[in-house]
Amino acid sequence: MKPFSPSDPNFETRIRASAGMQGVLSTLGAELELVHAGEAHLTALYDARFSQQDGFLHAGIVTTLMDSACGYAAFTLMPAASRVLSVEFKVNLLSPARGPRFRAEGRVIKHGRTLTVCEGKLFSIEKEEETLCAIMQATMICIRGE
Amino acid sequence: MKPFSPSDPNFETRIRASAGMQGVLSTLGAELELVHAGEAHLTALYDARFSQQDGFLHAGIVTTLMDSACGYAAFTLMPAASRVLSVEFKVNLLSPARGPRFRAEGRVIKHGRTLTVCEGKLFSIEKEEETLCAIMQATMICIRGE
Amino acid sequence: MKPFSPSDPNFETRIRASAGMQGVLSTLGAELELVHAGEAHLTALYDARFSQQDGFLHAGIVTTLMDSACGYAAFTLMPAASRVLSVEFKVNLLSPARGPRFRAEGRVIKHGRTLTVCEGKLFSIEKEEETLCAIMQATMICIRGE
Amino acid sequence: MKPFSPSDPNFETRIRASAGMQGVLSTLGAELELVHAGEAHLTALYDARFSQQDGFLHAGIVTTLMDSACGYAAFTLMPAASRVLSVEFKVNLLSPARGPRFRAEGRVIKHGRTLTVCEGKLFSIEKEEETLCAIMQATMICIRGE
Repeated sequence: MKPFSPSDPNFETRIRASAGMQGVLSTLGAELELVHAGEAHLTALYDARFSQQDGFLHAGIVTTLMDSACGYAAFTLMPAASRVLSVEFKVNLLSPARGPRFRAEGRVIKHGRTLTVCEGKLFSIEKEEETLCAIMQATMICIRGE
Repeated sequence: MKPFSPSDPNFETRIRASAGMQGVLSTLGAELELVHAGEAHLTALYDARFSQQDGFLHAGIVTTLMDSACGYAAFTLMPAASRVLSVEFKVNLLSPARGPRFRAEGRVIKHGRTLTVCEGKLFSIEKEEETLCAIMQATMICIRGE
Repeated sequence: MKPFSPSDPNFETRIRASAGMQGVLSTLGAELELVHAGEAHLTALYDARFSQQDGFLHAGIVTTLMDSACGYAAFTLMPAASRVLSVEFKVNLLSPARGPRFRAEGRVIKHGRTLTVCEGKLFSIEKEEETLCAIMQATMICIRGE
Repeated sequence: MKPFSPSDPNFETRIRASAGMQGVLSTLGAELELVHAGEAHLTALYDARFSQQDGFLHAGIVTTLMDSACGYAAFTLMPAASRVLSVEFKVNLLSPARGPRFRAEGRVIKHGRTLTVCEGKLFSIEKEEETLCAIMQATMICIRGE
């Protein structure tokens, strides 16, 4: 794949500002670990407040982290005066999201003027071991001129 | 569609017990509004702690509610000694999830011994008006003998 | 749901012309059975040339029929000078597509200026009995001004 | 990722026999180019009989090739006495499938006793240039004892 050429060189500042406005990320204690052109990573710690019935992180919270990582990955390539919204996503759950740490990775697969297709991954991290818990295929839309 | 014939007549008790063990539902303040054979509804109120950057309920939280409703809809038809897990789901986001109230509906489309396919809907409710905000197509798996 | 108000009153003529240009529909022997505002149905007969290893209609051909039905359902609501393309779709396979007849139904769930979300169904028909074989959740895009 | 350990050392023979029974693959002129543990590739040539209205390969046929590649990738890891069926898949369409040649790649992401999750890719090939046209996220099921 060719490297991406973001039209807005200050994309990281813009994305960190946007992340600061997502109530859910602060509630989850999620942090932006990496913001590169076409890629973004979020990390979070396990929290029993967001568990499903077996004590693992709920699939919807796993989705929240991956969707946010994919949205920011797409947003790195969008113009300075734009917003990003999720159009749709598809998630396969592969392994229980045990924690105690998680990293959600979002990557742009195809960037278009209006739509950007991303893939997401959610890793559960225990000591040095990383387990792929879920994968996402997502479409993001760029809302311009705002 | 033919009506469903649950093998466990006490499915509602079983599902309310399972819902009580989901940390995320209590954190979201979600309640089981309806549990019928092949169908389950959850309700919740808007909470800024779970918002995205524009102040609407985050797509991942919308997903959490629909996934839970679909999981419980499927679980109504599973045996007494079983667990339900999400295999995968796909979500299309149609309208901003403004609130102040939400209702997630899950319905079984096809029930099988191992896999059950469901569809989910998320409505935003303001006074008497309901707006369809998101739809889900999901696969649930029955883990037996536990 | 409110009834749809197509901007192009001649949508059926436009759609039948478009269907006539799809090589795959003529190869499959598929016919447009119904074209209403926000809805389109295609019918086809079983053909062993398009089977999978057990002799049923291949999931990809089931998809072809549902995708076309969804695309035309969306296209009914698009302007006269526009084209429709599939952005993405998700399919769950519920029952073997035995035939001998099939009907694919596409319906618009949410119509937007750029994106239209549809749901599709594929029924296998034997004598008077209809079996739901597959469901689709799809996003279509309107390409304007051509 | 760890390398896969197929339980059936003769998986390639088994898969080539299964592919020979898929009417749709012979109709599409598709050939199994590669069969490794956890991975399978199919190739096909452009054929106007399977086009959509703009003359590109129809999204449903693109899906047929990716679904078959994913199914065979999963099937490499299943027991000798088993069958593989598609449970569901999700496709994002990225670029027009122009041809004149296509290669569909399927890879196992997570192999389980019952369910196997795969990702698929469809490349359009013109001379030395390969363009990623579509991606798939799919779930396959193993039917045992037959």
